[in-house]
Amino acid sequence: MYDLFLRRPFMSAAGLAACNARDMITAMCAFELALAQIQENTGLLAHGTAAKLAQQLRPTQFDIESLADATANGGNVAIPFVKQARGMLTGELTSSLHVGATSQDVIDSAIMLLIKPRLQHCLALGQQVHAAGADLMRRFEATPMVGRTLMQQALPITFGRKVADWLWGYLQAEQRLAEVTHHGLFVQFGGAVGVHSGLADGLGLMDALAAELDLNAPLLPWHTDRQPVLAIAHALTGMAVAAEKISLDVALMSQNEIGELSEPAAEGVGSSSSMPHKRNPVACARIRAAAHQIRAAAATINNVGAQPLERGLGDWHAEWAPLMDAVLLLEGALESLARLLAGLEVHEDAMRKNLALTGGAIMAAPAKRLLADYLDTERAATLTREAAFTAVASGRDYADVLLEDPEIAACVDAQMLREAVDPALHTGSSRAQVARLLARLRTG
Amino acid sequence: MYDLFLRRPFMSAAGLAACNARDMITAMCAFELALAQIQENTGLLAHGTAAKLAQQLRPTQFDIESLADATANGGNVAIPFVKQARGMLTGELTSSLHVGATSQDVIDSAIMLLIKPRLQHCLALGQQVHAAGADLMRRFEATPMVGRTLMQQALPITFGRKVADWLWGYLQAEQRLAEVTHHGLFVQFGGAVGVHSGLADGLGLMDALAAELDLNAPLLPWHTDRQPVLAIAHALTGMAVAAEKISLDVALMSQNEIGELSEPAAEGVGSSSSMPHKRNPVACARIRAAAHQIRAAAATINNVGAQPLERGLGDWHAEWAPLMDAVLLLEGALESLARLLAGLEVHEDAMRKNLALTGGAIMAAPAKRLLADYLDTERAATLTREAAFTAVASGRDYADVLLEDPEIAACVDAQMLREAVDPALHTGSSRAQVARLLARLRTG
Amino acid sequence: MYDLFLRRPFMSAAGLAACNARDMITAMCAFELALAQIQENTGLLAHGTAAKLAQQLRPTQFDIESLADATANGGNVAIPFVKQARGMLTGELTSSLHVGATSQDVIDSAIMLLIKPRLQHCLALGQQVHAAGADLMRRFEATPMVGRTLMQQALPITFGRKVADWLWGYLQAEQRLAEVTHHGLFVQFGGAVGVHSGLADGLGLMDALAAELDLNAPLLPWHTDRQPVLAIAHALTGMAVAAEKISLDVALMSQNEIGELSEPAAEGVGSSSSMPHKRNPVACARIRAAAHQIRAAAATINNVGAQPLERGLGDWHAEWAPLMDAVLLLEGALESLARLLAGLEVHEDAMRKNLALTGGAIMAAPAKRLLADYLDTERAATLTREAAFTAVASGRDYADVLLEDPEIAACVDAQMLREAVDPALHTGSSRAQVARLLARLRTG
Amino acid sequence: MYDLFLRRPFMSAAGLAACNARDMITAMCAFELALAQIQENTGLLAHGTAAKLAQQLRPTQFDIESLADATANGGNVAIPFVKQARGMLTGELTSSLHVGATSQDVIDSAIMLLIKPRLQHCLALGQQVHAAGADLMRRFEATPMVGRTLMQQALPITFGRKVADWLWGYLQAEQRLAEVTHHGLFVQFGGAVGVHSGLADGLGLMDALAAELDLNAPLLPWHTDRQPVLAIAHALTGMAVAAEKISLDVALMSQNEIGELSEPAAEGVGSSSSMPHKRNPVACARIRAAAHQIRAAAATINNVGAQPLERGLGDWHAEWAPLMDAVLLLEGALESLARLLAGLEVHEDAMRKNLALTGGAIMAAPAKRLLADYLDTERAATLTREAAFTAVASGRDYADVLLEDPEIAACVDAQMLREAVDPALHTGSSRAQVARLLARLRTG
Repeated sequence: MYDLFLRRPFMSAAGLAACNARDMITAMCAFELALAQIQENTGLLAHGTAAKLAQQLRPTQFDIESLADATANGGNVAIPFVKQARGMLTGELTSSLHVGATSQDVIDSAIMLLIKPRLQHCLALGQQVHAAGADLMRRFEATPMVGRTLMQQALPITFGRKVADWLWGYLQAEQRLAEVTHHGLFVQFGGAVGVHSGLADGLGLMDALAAELDLNAPLLPWHTDRQPVLAIAHALTGMAVAAEKISLDVALMSQNEIGELSEPAAEGVGSSSSMPHKRNPVACARIRAAAHQIRAAAATINNVGAQPLERGLGDWHAEWAPLMDAVLLLEGALESLARLLAGLEVHEDAMRKNLALTGGAIMAAPAKRLLADYLDTERAATLTREAAFTAVASGRDYADVLLEDPEIAACVDAQMLREAVDPALHTGSSRAQVARLLARLRTG
Repeated sequence: MYDLFLRRPFMSAAGLAACNARDMITAMCAFELALAQIQENTGLLAHGTAAKLAQQLRPTQFDIESLADATANGGNVAIPFVKQARGMLTGELTSSLHVGATSQDVIDSAIMLLIKPRLQHCLALGQQVHAAGADLMRRFEATPMVGRTLMQQALPITFGRKVADWLWGYLQAEQRLAEVTHHGLFVQFGGAVGVHSGLADGLGLMDALAAELDLNAPLLPWHTDRQPVLAIAHALTGMAVAAEKISLDVALMSQNEIGELSEPAAEGVGSSSSMPHKRNPVACARIRAAAHQIRAAAATINNVGAQPLERGLGDWHAEWAPLMDAVLLLEGALESLARLLAGLEVHEDAMRKNLALTGGAIMAAPAKRLLADYLDTERAATLTREAAFTAVASGRDYADVLLEDPEIAACVDAQMLREAVDPALHTGSSRAQVARLLARLRTG
Repeated sequence: MYDLFLRRPFMSAAGLAACNARDMITAMCAFELALAQIQENTGLLAHGTAAKLAQQLRPTQFDIESLADATANGGNVAIPFVKQARGMLTGELTSSLHVGATSQDVIDSAIMLLIKPRLQHCLALGQQVHAAGADLMRRFEATPMVGRTLMQQALPITFGRKVADWLWGYLQAEQRLAEVTHHGLFVQFGGAVGVHSGLADGLGLMDALAAELDLNAPLLPWHTDRQPVLAIAHALTGMAVAAEKISLDVALMSQNEIGELSEPAAEGVGSSSSMPHKRNPVACARIRAAAHQIRAAAATINNVGAQPLERGLGDWHAEWAPLMDAVLLLEGALESLARLLAGLEVHEDAMRKNLALTGGAIMAAPAKRLLADYLDTERAATLTREAAFTAVASGRDYADVLLEDPEIAACVDAQMLREAVDPALHTGSSRAQVARLLARLRTG
Repeated sequence: MYDLFLRRPFMSAAGLAACNARDMITAMCAFELALAQIQENTGLLAHGTAAKLAQQLRPTQFDIESLADATANGGNVAIPFVKQARGMLTGELTSSLHVGATSQDVIDSAIMLLIKPRLQHCLALGQQVHAAGADLMRRFEATPMVGRTLMQQALPITFGRKVADWLWGYLQAEQRLAEVTHHGLFVQFGGAVGVHSGLADGLGLMDALAAELDLNAPLLPWHTDRQPVLAIAHALTGMAVAAEKISLDVALMSQNEIGELSEPAAEGVGSSSSMPHKRNPVACARIRAAAHQIRAAAATINNVGAQPLERGLGDWHAEWAPLMDAVLLLEGALESLARLLAGLEVHEDAMRKNLALTGGAIMAAPAKRLLADYLDTERAATLTREAAFTAVASGRDYADVLLEDPEIAACVDAQMLREAVDPALHTGSSRAQVARLLARLRTG
């Protein structure tokens, strides 16, 4: 389908390889087998049933295209899936399949089974992001660059501090993703109306099924209580935004006229045959494209969160693809991010050059603070502001312009003034912030 | 991929069949061939070039998987597409391909070529919707049913009027879809930065290319002016909401306790093996599922509408899949809607029964208006209100309860009162509304 | 402004009373005074400065209208606020105000100060919701009603179980709200570019300031790391959806034809002068209206989450009103919800009547299970399905129809069959679910 | 309320002044008086009724606070409004008010009356945008600047062409806004369930009422057909995105390191007391902040577009504030945009300097095209690519580097090569695009 060119390029290849239609069937079979196993364990099914089912129920033998066609009719894939599955079974086994389960039990659980390893992979990619970030922080903890507010030059920071800021955002988001990955991927099992109709100890079966499938056990079935899905969607959104923030800064700092960063160079990535000077920030583009689509997926999931009565009508159905999309898009974005940070090219000379761009006028505030010790506050403000305009207009050094003023020269030590307006000496808590972040990374 | 079960069931099968990855390649080839043709026409390329290209450039010979892989690297499919295409060409033809074009020219145009027949199909489905709606209006123009506000019974309408209301919403949305389908599907052609660099009469070529591809000619290239895409997304949203409104009413009116409508029965659609009494409103579910996802697609397109400078960074990329999704989801929803309306089962007896549910108390307002001619307004209000409560509580006929009151019986003619509270005589402008809508359908 | 009629009615009156423009100023003053206090504590400001500032800086003396006018020019209220504040101060105090702070420090912190008591109030309202829910669960733990899937009657549950389901959704959402309320309301303090330019121990000051204001201390300033705001927005969304789910079920179950629930009656609430029989579910309408707007606020916050470089450009500004709106709308929705649940009218007779609506045919599944012990499975399915259709069509009792069939009558005990199709005996794990939820409520 | 500082600064002051709660009441009174007038005209009310009502019904005498309080109870302001209104009337006039109308009739119509002059003002502001844009296009039609794709330097355009691109986006959006302003602001009049219950010629009254209020007449009442509101929301979104696109480019081009544009300087706008070198792009920030919130409003309106049965339940209520917000935010954004464009400072020297930044290497493509006439295509590509890298690395002029190569020097005329790589000679269709846009502006 068109998505081969239009959506999948932004997804993780590893993720895609594990989330084919066939993998979905495998996950659904896993649900059915686990259900039979625990029902056998509790005596509901005859001894040996699960083993026999495992032999006869072969994911590879389902007719995928006919499942897809039938899905449109009934509204979900579980209906034709169970029908095909029963067709593979001999004799009494047909009535040992899917006992007490409803379509939503199979599908919700299968989706959880599919996304669990993907979210685990996202967390594993996080380790690469941490490592690359820590390396950048260490290397550039004292490298001054200009901080920019409202996209205008403001005051100095260090590049290490910027990375610390990126990483803190990332860590906060990651903590929420880890929370849902470890504790919020629930089995679904409630039967037709969520009360295990026709089963003796439905809640006990639900708990056992969760353990069997290595999913979390919910307090109750969650057919129309979609808080678990919301929590996942929110965690994905947080991660997407954390990655997007980094990609936005990288793209801005990679503009030719700024030139402080470049995406890692790689064969065939981001080059333009007709414009050899270009190195396009393709990783940034991929991350941003993914982030926009992840947010839309989360919006859908939020919009359909309140589902009517015991089972949704179109709202549940509207969750499926967005949730899967969002997971694989995030996985793809994190792969891009890990590579981007690991190979990020940092141009310290450009950072230095940009700091000097306003002739040092970004240091007017510390100059004013220093002069205020010797002159009237108002006067200090006026002189430093005027000198700033002069420095910008003439392209000269701010300290030189200031010291040219006889009133200033008369009252302040030249060396002290030069230090007061040296950006590298005014990066505030930048290093302390890096230290804090590195410590946090160590403690996890 | 998982979308086979999770997204495609909500899409049009016809649409899917025409929007495979191979169809995207065919559309891209069509763009390149048309470009060569008009460049040949203006003497830019040698006579016969386009014909030779057409022979050598075979959509079926592209290696789809390798295109998909390479797309992730460069960020869009046009880069590897042009490379593979050149590999198929002999000698000088390689330099006759893609002359003056940029990736975005090919992709934006190819997407327009893909969606044009789909939107035309949506408009054709509209004809079925009109016909089915007109038929329902004619059959039930005088069939009384209770109107419901805030999901509570209020006053009578006719079922024909409800259909008229559905249709008017549909017509308004459809008019906007027709507008973009006929006038808003633009060719894209601007070259690397949108100014036809290196070409003599770029705007002339752009206009000619539009004519050659049977797309609309834009005033200017629209690389980062995404208003054309917004207009499409908005039209799709309008249609989705119009269809969703109908499906919402049908689902509500199909609740067992209301029972005024049923979705058409069809083999294998909406039945439940374990619950034979059920007939699930599957068409409604499909329409609602599609509508939610179309809205999310439109939100993404709105969110990335403002793209930086001469070409987007991730924002353009984020438009592709949502736009295609939204088109095919709408096409699927309209197919469901056309079938739903054509086969809708209308239960007039249930409508009648529900009208009587409050013992006629929904007619308190006309009763009050009538009595106000004979009694003090306040007194009329009090009496009719109290009688309404009595009728509801006792399950008796409202007129009977009213006439039991000696004050009322003394002042008003019984027959006149009974008529005043007969719902079928109080459907207001329902029939006039049906007439208006039918007239509009005739004039188009 | 128009919002007096169009937005505020959906908000908490208590919340509104505490979030006037004047309260915003009070919160900004609190920030400035706390900053001065901790700077005095560390010797940065002279002893007694904070006390003097507290005397001179009077929230009531700010000219609100001129602040509002000036806000449009500079883009945020902190700029004119600091200017007016300095105008109130004498002598050297002017240079003791706002030392090392930037506009965003004041505004972000003030907003956190404003929303903290509101979120605490939301959590307090939760206690009322829990109590009302627990009461409903206890009273109706065994009250059978029909469960509905895809808005069609399916199988029996109990009303207590439905409430348990509502509550579990609520508890999950509430846990996330509690998390951000207790640990995620951060002070903002970073200075112009987030590195405490010009201050000695910026991070130390930040931590102390958090303690002084009774806000949480972030690891780093979060000027363009908006994860804290995202976390709040997500928690609000979760709560909104949990409340909306309840309101959706109540509205559906309050439809006249279903009549299982009514909103609590109250003077002037939900009545209609022209239609005395109506009791509009106004609380449900209010909750749903709030939920839609809360989601939109969260979408905005998600969309602007990735902010450029050291300070946003319009994106930060776009967070303010949506965040405040969402908090006050949620507070209003929870007030409505608490009242709704505390006074919810439950009509057990209607529940009973609706269970019987299909002539008992909703019990076809257990009938089939029972008969399968005596007959061939296929045969059992056919007979029970056919009887179900007969029962629905004729409006007769399902057990009667079944027992009329000689094949069935011959093989199964009549009493056993009657029990098998008695809804009240087939509510599955409903009671166990109630027990689980009540236990969870006790342990918190 | 907090919105005084947090939302209103992004809105139009003129718009705010005309949309107070009192203005809403005035609009509601206008609806009631017009309704009485046309009912008098058709003989439904006694001669002179409307005039008497006009004397007694005084917008200034409504108790706004008590209306606001009562609104929360009933769910909308029309209920207490009609009650207060009747309280002002003498004798029989009380029964001549609001005849046949429902709350939604008054509120929907009043909102249309409020937004109509605002949308007209938006269109009037468009004239200023056109004029400022045309002026910029004329002044800079031939001013070369570098075009940027994926935020990297690509090939030359002219600044005039960029403005043409901005304007075309604007014109497309504006056409849709004009369409809804002139033809899509409908009166609402349908009575309790949309069928003019109790009135003789409801549709005729509806049409007459539209004329009386100078609103458009809909085909049918639109209580739960919200296509008219969707169309407005979509038009607002299009305009917001068109303005946002311009503000995004301006903000990017105003970055200190690029320096090609500056927002107009104005007293107290965008300056920073602590950083005198800064000129913050405050208009851009305001436009972007507004655009984000307008999109969220439109998303809400899309999300609640499908409303149940004859009157919504919370969904209608959720439209009100977002729609009003969006209109006033757009009006504010357009005011900012008109000022921004009228005073935009264009720095041609910076455009020239940035064009030279890569040593001319952005011209590798035309160099290759020229050399391909003399050398093998592959060879031409290699030489021009290598020279580009050399020019970038050494900071030298691209033509100089190329001509240094003996192979190139031997085969091509130096002057021809210099012209081939002169950006100012390679701005493609830029001037033609400006001419096209200016022509369109003239024809409207």
